[in-house]
Amino acid sequence: MLIVMNPHATPQQLEAVCERVQALGFRAHVVGGARCTAIGVTGNSGEVSPAPFEELPGVSEVVRVTRPYKLVSREFHPDNTVLRFPNSATIGGRELAVIAGPCSVESREQIFTIAEHLVSRGVRFLRGGAFKPRTSPYSFQGLGEEGLKLLAEVRDRFGLLIVTEAMDESSLRLVERYADVIQVGSRNMQNYSLLKLVGRSRKPVLLKRGMSATLEEYLLAAEYILNEGNFEVLFCERGVRTFTDHSRNTMDLSVIPAVQQVSHLPIIADPSHGTGRRDRVLPLSRAAVAVGADGLIIEVHNAPDQALSDGAQSLSLPEFDRLLEEIRQIAPVVQRSVSSDVTANAAVAR
Amino acid sequence: MLIVMNPHATPQQLEAVCERVQALGFRAHVVGGARCTAIGVTGNSGEVSPAPFEELPGVSEVVRVTRPYKLVSREFHPDNTVLRFPNSATIGGRELAVIAGPCSVESREQIFTIAEHLVSRGVRFLRGGAFKPRTSPYSFQGLGEEGLKLLAEVRDRFGLLIVTEAMDESSLRLVERYADVIQVGSRNMQNYSLLKLVGRSRKPVLLKRGMSATLEEYLLAAEYILNEGNFEVLFCERGVRTFTDHSRNTMDLSVIPAVQQVSHLPIIADPSHGTGRRDRVLPLSRAAVAVGADGLIIEVHNAPDQALSDGAQSLSLPEFDRLLEEIRQIAPVVQRSVSSDVTANAAVAR
Amino acid sequence: MLIVMNPHATPQQLEAVCERVQALGFRAHVVGGARCTAIGVTGNSGEVSPAPFEELPGVSEVVRVTRPYKLVSREFHPDNTVLRFPNSATIGGRELAVIAGPCSVESREQIFTIAEHLVSRGVRFLRGGAFKPRTSPYSFQGLGEEGLKLLAEVRDRFGLLIVTEAMDESSLRLVERYADVIQVGSRNMQNYSLLKLVGRSRKPVLLKRGMSATLEEYLLAAEYILNEGNFEVLFCERGVRTFTDHSRNTMDLSVIPAVQQVSHLPIIADPSHGTGRRDRVLPLSRAAVAVGADGLIIEVHNAPDQALSDGAQSLSLPEFDRLLEEIRQIAPVVQRSVSSDVTANAAVAR
Amino acid sequence: MLIVMNPHATPQQLEAVCERVQALGFRAHVVGGARCTAIGVTGNSGEVSPAPFEELPGVSEVVRVTRPYKLVSREFHPDNTVLRFPNSATIGGRELAVIAGPCSVESREQIFTIAEHLVSRGVRFLRGGAFKPRTSPYSFQGLGEEGLKLLAEVRDRFGLLIVTEAMDESSLRLVERYADVIQVGSRNMQNYSLLKLVGRSRKPVLLKRGMSATLEEYLLAAEYILNEGNFEVLFCERGVRTFTDHSRNTMDLSVIPAVQQVSHLPIIADPSHGTGRRDRVLPLSRAAVAVGADGLIIEVHNAPDQALSDGAQSLSLPEFDRLLEEIRQIAPVVQRSVSSDVTANAAVAR
Repeated sequence: MLIVMNPHATPQQLEAVCERVQALGFRAHVVGGARCTAIGVTGNSGEVSPAPFEELPGVSEVVRVTRPYKLVSREFHPDNTVLRFPNSATIGGRELAVIAGPCSVESREQIFTIAEHLVSRGVRFLRGGAFKPRTSPYSFQGLGEEGLKLLAEVRDRFGLLIVTEAMDESSLRLVERYADVIQVGSRNMQNYSLLKLVGRSRKPVLLKRGMSATLEEYLLAAEYILNEGNFEVLFCERGVRTFTDHSRNTMDLSVIPAVQQVSHLPIIADPSHGTGRRDRVLPLSRAAVAVGADGLIIEVHNAPDQALSDGAQSLSLPEFDRLLEEIRQIAPVVQRSVSSDVTANAAVAR
Repeated sequence: MLIVMNPHATPQQLEAVCERVQALGFRAHVVGGARCTAIGVTGNSGEVSPAPFEELPGVSEVVRVTRPYKLVSREFHPDNTVLRFPNSATIGGRELAVIAGPCSVESREQIFTIAEHLVSRGVRFLRGGAFKPRTSPYSFQGLGEEGLKLLAEVRDRFGLLIVTEAMDESSLRLVERYADVIQVGSRNMQNYSLLKLVGRSRKPVLLKRGMSATLEEYLLAAEYILNEGNFEVLFCERGVRTFTDHSRNTMDLSVIPAVQQVSHLPIIADPSHGTGRRDRVLPLSRAAVAVGADGLIIEVHNAPDQALSDGAQSLSLPEFDRLLEEIRQIAPVVQRSVSSDVTANAAVAR
Repeated sequence: MLIVMNPHATPQQLEAVCERVQALGFRAHVVGGARCTAIGVTGNSGEVSPAPFEELPGVSEVVRVTRPYKLVSREFHPDNTVLRFPNSATIGGRELAVIAGPCSVESREQIFTIAEHLVSRGVRFLRGGAFKPRTSPYSFQGLGEEGLKLLAEVRDRFGLLIVTEAMDESSLRLVERYADVIQVGSRNMQNYSLLKLVGRSRKPVLLKRGMSATLEEYLLAAEYILNEGNFEVLFCERGVRTFTDHSRNTMDLSVIPAVQQVSHLPIIADPSHGTGRRDRVLPLSRAAVAVGADGLIIEVHNAPDQALSDGAQSLSLPEFDRLLEEIRQIAPVVQRSVSSDVTANAAVAR
Repeated sequence: MLIVMNPHATPQQLEAVCERVQALGFRAHVVGGARCTAIGVTGNSGEVSPAPFEELPGVSEVVRVTRPYKLVSREFHPDNTVLRFPNSATIGGRELAVIAGPCSVESREQIFTIAEHLVSRGVRFLRGGAFKPRTSPYSFQGLGEEGLKLLAEVRDRFGLLIVTEAMDESSLRLVERYADVIQVGSRNMQNYSLLKLVGRSRKPVLLKRGMSATLEEYLLAAEYILNEGNFEVLFCERGVRTFTDHSRNTMDLSVIPAVQQVSHLPIIADPSHGTGRRDRVLPLSRAAVAVGADGLIIEVHNAPDQALSDGAQSLSLPEFDRLLEEIRQIAPVVQRSVSSDVTANAAVAR
């Protein structure tokens, strides 16, 4: 921590700050500048609160210089973490992870139609919500365990890996049983009770960025999960809230290289929620791959106009095919590839 | 719902939209303007999705015209809701609700020292966290049930009503037993599982605004609680996240009259979190009362510099006294008063 | 400036940074911490760019510790600046400055009706736009010099001091001739050419905060004016742009004490633009006075529904009277007063 | 315009609104819904103000349904506008426009070194500031006309087209004489006096997006230019201001397809300002091309560490080469190409 004195601070004020530093068991190092003086505080083993210093006379600012996250950082684990799955799929490796499917599981016919299409295109991961956090209590809230069972059937039939959301302890117990990846939604990014619970799970966690989470808050949310013992965490940029009104959220694609620089964990992008508009999903998917994302999660529906939720942002099956084709061309520029192996899923199917 | 056609839309496109409206069981009313044509859609009993219309040829925009919240609105309940408590305290009535106390319960001595001071000033509500949602897993997380027991002791001794936070089902079960008002924190404003649980509780709920919640999202979060049967909800503006860096958050005081216009539920302000700086709490508290808030929630500590959490934004006891004195002078301008009756709490004390 | 090394930096990397510091003519002071090392850079007379250091191996962050503004700061001028005017009015002193009037000067009858009302209530400053920056080129752009002449007539007749906006060199030449205070609008807060021009003027400048200006950018915009020799600058908080949609802008009232802490210049609030809604102007005006603003600027119109611009946020004359009455009650709490001396303006009238 | 009544509005209130509509010379069309009633207002030739209706009893909301911009819209001009230049370069056509060069022109040697490198890579446009709007009055403000003369020499020598910023009338007169494209900076996006002046120029205008400009405000700023007769306008997304702190601004890449959908004018991206960090420029440049931008504007310097401005975000010459190589691979996916014809500039050189 660094305590910056204001230019008019007196020697007595400087002295008083140093004494307070020492009284709290730290060491004070005075650095004199042309226009102001600063005091480096050392000897602190963990986080030290700026509160005892901020309002002492003559203090201009207190600057924190160490990062509060550890386990998620590259300093702790220099190499990329690659999540590995039974059907040989990976997230964070050379192959781009493509996770696709409807916002909500609606019916047996719907989910089978979509899954069959996806598997025929080489996709390895199926998304589909059974428990849906909805802004209004009057909106469709998902099929619950019934939906999970349909997802499990799809998994058995097609070998697709299942990504679905848990909202609380009871839904987590069910999701854990049926899914391959547990999703924690944006609205729960700082639901620390849920983070601790998924941190004790044995399944990988897809942790969506909160609507207005800073990079540090996002990393610390993941730190809660790793700190409980689960090191398989996948970040996901899904748009942040800004003043703009031309799209539902503002995709912050620059957070992708930022996360990759400081953390070993993979990060994918969600252009469906990031834009909220079907006609923006394709360009922003290309952009996300080009910026270096480890994958995409895309809402796809066999009849978007009849979807029970998020229809306006769901791609039709032919639109999804076009997306796959375009990102397949961009992937090599960033040393990636997009699987087209339609037989690979067999390992999971029964 | 209103479907706005773009100025170059053809009569055939207009016709096609009307047919789609009717095919879905609604009625279409064409309104021709000088520069564009719109179609009013009626006959819908609930929310109707814009998705089937938004991408039809010739459609420029789909505008929703009904509000998705019901129970929280003044249309449902025209008069102000006033929360009433055993010690004759109210929230939402003529008397300003002043809720004060430390960020976290830290020790018996700390909470008793603060409570004794507050009660001697006529304060009726004590805040104090036992379960603390902290951005970092390495920060102090509260004393848990131990903290709740200390709060219960304070209640018995001084007659102060207890406001404390629940984070999940298990903490809620404990908080419900000890507290008079259950707090749901900003980070959990859209934790719908928790909202439903507190909606089934018999205790009033203080629902803090999320960091980037729109007015509508905030109202809908409360709607979740009312929809489960609990009509005693108290809103709280605590600063929103913006680009500004001179304070921790940006207090959006204009949301207070906005909530009061559309909802019957009371709303208070939290200048401690709203500013994050002790020296801003006093001016923003005055402003919140002047804007018409139904009360304040203020972090107060007997030794702010040694606080285990949020010390930088906690008032000392003398600073809190000055705050009380200043808002007492402003209250009459907005037809309010600040209690100074030090005996009123006796009804709750045992 | 402080260069923070990352925890894994090698001694060689630390050495290389120190050498770079010295090569650029500065001195390096190494401060060793438990988890990381930092290097204080001194000897710099002005601003030093972080660029030469930021990407050296092992560097985690470069932190600037001196403030780039000088003339606007309290360190340069510890006492409050009080602007003084011919009719004995002041801004920044004990008396709250109330600046009222229509968005635009529309006609002789309109401006005289409003002025007569204001002067009968003891108001000293009349606002009224003759040159209007409008978002759309098709909106009413003001009466130009014709409007300024009407304002000058009002000044002569009623003794009100005139506050009106200049947009560029040619309008400035005219505004300077007729007005008592030159307004620089939000959209021009970083129009440095205009700032330099008004900095060479002999009239005080009301500098509105830009839509998304940080505190530092705002102070630096004023620094441009002072740096040209004009020390009579008045700040004005008028709402910032955020994600919220319940009001036109979000009033950031906490910037008022923040400006007052670091700068000697006065700051007022503009709740008309800050909220964009007539029914919010009254509560936010009370709040602005309570937070400690040096005054208010309020849009008032004799027939708001027929206003050529900003009618939706203009108060009617009776609504303005009520505002005056309410802030008159709050002012003493913050050691202020609101003038009701209807004869004071005589000194300016001819 | 559509006036939405609230669900409890009385028939008398509805009637009163219709009368007001008619009294103002418009026609009222009542559309009755299940839960609320709306009134379509027609007969208005231009923009109609919502003010006369918003506060009538029973009115819930007033919704504007026509767009305020005309000349910039695709409805006015359905085909893409392609800017054409003497050296056969285009902006908005099949070839991606790459505009590169230093933040500021610093010296003859600097600008010639950079220009020579760029031209050898097939680049057609050189950027370089002679008049620099800087946040602090104490920062380097550019070489002025001296800088423009150096740019003109470069143009004569290498045939590069010159893009440089004008800040006011006097700098515009000079810039117009020497440059091929006049840049209007972010801080001046709503400097309407400057917009009108460049609207009367015969040179194309690069109009940067303001820090917090909505799509509509941005389009209307361009409308000011077209409305004066200059139809050669080029948009540029350069990052918007948000709460995020991991990059200088947040690039809003989704505005690129949004602009392209509603306007015929081309739009490029500025990842240098958009990110503010050299190591983010490359990934965001790839993303901007992938999203469909018509080009890039990139800060490049022969010695970024010694740059007088914006060094931290300037690419070195080898880094720029890598950028060119990567976007050359992505371009075909979006039906674009990147020129590598080093002889094409000859037409402009003398």
